Amino acid sequence: MDTLSKHDLQQFEEAFCPYYQQAVELIGRKWTGVILRAQLHGILRFSELKAAIPALSDRMLSERLKELEAEGLVVRRVIPDTPVRVEYLLTAKGRALGAVVEVISSWADQWLKHTPGAGRAATGEV
Amino acid sequence: MDTLSKHDLQQFEEAFCPYYQQAVELIGRKWTGVILRAQLHGILRFSELKAAIPALSDRMLSERLKELEAEGLVVRRVIPDTPVRVEYLLTAKGRALGAVVEVISSWADQWLKHTPGAGRAATGEV
Repeated sequence: MDTLSKHDLQQFEEAFCPYYQQAVELIGRKWTGVILRAQLHGILRFSELKAAIPALSDRMLSERLKELEAEGLVVRRVIPDTPVRVEYLLTAKGRALGAVVEVISSWADQWLKHTPGAGRAATGEV
Repeated sequence: MDTLSKHDLQQFEEAFCPYYQQAVELIGRKWTGVILRAQLHGILRFSELKAAIPALSDRMLSERLKELEAEGLVVRRVIPDTPVRVEYLLTAKGRALGAVVEVISSWADQWLKHTPGAGRAATGEV
């Protein structure tokens, strides 16, 4: 690569953000984004999250919820009912991901559901 | 779980979307979201993407770009210069992810950069 100009350097610095990387790779972890979307739809109990998300195992759900708890996105609440119920509530930080989930859902709806082949073939179309 | 009402069933169906899952797990794959963000900032050449993204190896960048090409998000263009330059342009489908990258960046800025401890400690705050 040629020597970088001051303009290039600034562009490069703006192009990378470690906080963005942390965020995108957190919500994109297998099942994590899916669990968050279900919670944003008001599904809070462990058993219901399991029922709402096909092919998700108990072990994986449990692991992901623990990670989300550690990240401060969900809070675990035990309700002393018979039988005991366990709910996972979104914190303010977790609820703030609503906008993210919404815009990804829209993109998926437009580009994967309704134009599934878009650009898959190398048409050269840009 | 108790028997599900019709309302519950509908809520469950809306809570899960396979296209959303595909989208969120695609952009959240390690480095993928980061590469897309750099491209949206106008960084298109292989060598410049490498320079803009710390700790990203040649092999990984190459692999991720091939995946993005297969998904129809980028198109590879060879410019017959001396030396030959290779650029990766975003397709319309790829550029449409601009809104996603922006809203994730905002969330990261607010909740990871400026309130990094938010909710990490089990404060019980919901």
